Amino acid sequence: MSKEQRAKIDAMLRQPRPEGARPVEVIRAEFEAQMAEMIVPDGLRTTQTTLGDRPALHVEPRGGARSATILYLHGGGWVFGSPRAALSLTGNLVAKTGFGAFSLDYRLAPEHPFPAAIDDALAAYRALLDEGQDPATIAFAGESAGGGLTVTTCLAARDAGLPMPAAIVAFSPGLDATRTGASMDTKAELDPLLSSASMEYTGSMYRAGADPHQPLLSPAVLADLTGFPPMLIQVGTNEILLDDSTRLAARASAAGVDVILDITADVPHVFQSFAGVLDEADHALDRAALFLTQHVHVPERAFVSAAKG
Amino acid sequence: MSKEQRAKIDAMLRQPRPEGARPVEVIRAEFEAQMAEMIVPDGLRTTQTTLGDRPALHVEPRGGARSATILYLHGGGWVFGSPRAALSLTGNLVAKTGFGAFSLDYRLAPEHPFPAAIDDALAAYRALLDEGQDPATIAFAGESAGGGLTVTTCLAARDAGLPMPAAIVAFSPGLDATRTGASMDTKAELDPLLSSASMEYTGSMYRAGADPHQPLLSPAVLADLTGFPPMLIQVGTNEILLDDSTRLAARASAAGVDVILDITADVPHVFQSFAGVLDEADHALDRAALFLTQHVHVPERAFVSAAKG
Repeated sequence: MSKEQRAKIDAMLRQPRPEGARPVEVIRAEFEAQMAEMIVPDGLRTTQTTLGDRPALHVEPRGGARSATILYLHGGGWVFGSPRAALSLTGNLVAKTGFGAFSLDYRLAPEHPFPAAIDDALAAYRALLDEGQDPATIAFAGESAGGGLTVTTCLAARDAGLPMPAAIVAFSPGLDATRTGASMDTKAELDPLLSSASMEYTGSMYRAGADPHQPLLSPAVLADLTGFPPMLIQVGTNEILLDDSTRLAARASAAGVDVILDITADVPHVFQSFAGVLDEADHALDRAALFLTQHVHVPERAFVSAAKG
Repeated sequence: MSKEQRAKIDAMLRQPRPEGARPVEVIRAEFEAQMAEMIVPDGLRTTQTTLGDRPALHVEPRGGARSATILYLHGGGWVFGSPRAALSLTGNLVAKTGFGAFSLDYRLAPEHPFPAAIDDALAAYRALLDEGQDPATIAFAGESAGGGLTVTTCLAARDAGLPMPAAIVAFSPGLDATRTGASMDTKAELDPLLSSASMEYTGSMYRAGADPHQPLLSPAVLADLTGFPPMLIQVGTNEILLDDSTRLAARASAAGVDVILDITADVPHVFQSFAGVLDEADHALDRAALFLTQHVHVPERAFVSAAKG
């Protein structure tokens, strides 16, 4: 059954699409429309709020969340995407863990290039800590560029002397602005979504001339991950970004970090978005939820009523 | 809490032990005594039976097993160990999945060198298929040398034209008789259990002069894993065998196989044996159980009464 599902999704993603470098506003609108097709689980309550200095979408089970928090960082090449576009992913993690999530509307390039997104994510984490939340009750999660931000925000937090969150979950993270992974070439034909050219188009807006040879832009090749919390990295084999994940996992292991490198064959970038349609997506999200439940501390009898929100 | 648990187990394993190459009978007796200390979950029913031409321990929940089967292959360097010694591991997988398990008492070296163990495991798998069991309902699991056998038996099954099982779970598998993993050196000081010398002592008995450069002895460096079922490989960072796992995972991914490389920091070889004492062990087994449940097909309403056994 699922082999058919994988092939169907690959064919769908290979539909002809407009060529060339489209304006940022068009890319943003198209991505929102595309992600609006994804299935959001029932039983959630979403509330527009702020965290740090930025808008955030608070997502929790309608019956109230366990008092643990996912700081969610959406994907979109640091140029497009939004908490709303990532709601299928955030919502599935919330539904499967019972945790609440803040999905951050961090600033985007080219209007706000590197390191604005990291600054916003760090400010959001700091805001949670300033509210008195125990870092052992907080996880970072994100997809694609947001998966990259889970790692770079954690680096920034460590360098700022903040305590580490309890866990990191990254779906198909973008972790190397030097683009030196072998998969950039070996997976070029297989990747139905991303290309070197499309990544360079948005990546150059994010970097805005900054040297890619620094840990906050290329953690998979340059970051020292010492002291990091347990990490779960999920990636597909039909991705030019595959080796961003494999190299980060190797660095994490070498730094003495608990790490799970979870590779699903024949699926595209952020295949978890197809939850409800592709069995591998639901399975991967179930594994992510178990991982979060194992590492994020939930104080006993700590059940926060949604009505409070 | 768990950092203390990890340190305690490391200290315990570093207690002085008799030096030098002890007779095989002594090693076998000591290993049985050591493993008898491990905690076996309650609520299991074990029955001595046969599978293929070999004795096997049938392990199932006392209330009856779901009709899916784990073919379990114990560790012990292909020279020592037994289904009884591995009962904590097998029993935890059974308790957490509800599946039944056959833990195979395959022939050991030096009396029965390579490929006797693989022949026995393949015969056991064939016996399950000959009984009419659907391969989609069968998983291979094992630890250490038995983790190696999960992979080499699957290779042998594929080469014999048999259908693939539904999944493979390998705990700290031994997968490289050429011993070329960098971790053989880099982890030598950190590994409280295994050394190059101890591995060569038993490994040479198993090989009995056979060339280590063949897939059935060194799958991590030589096997083509095309067509393999989804694999979960769990390993600790305090292991000279770490790179057997990392290299097999890379080969699996390159061959288009679903693979999870699940690395826990600062724990020893087959740390899952410490279930009930070390949180990481229970967590790892829970992840293994979820993985098995996701990949092994359980026919609906197929509940086999234990009374039948």
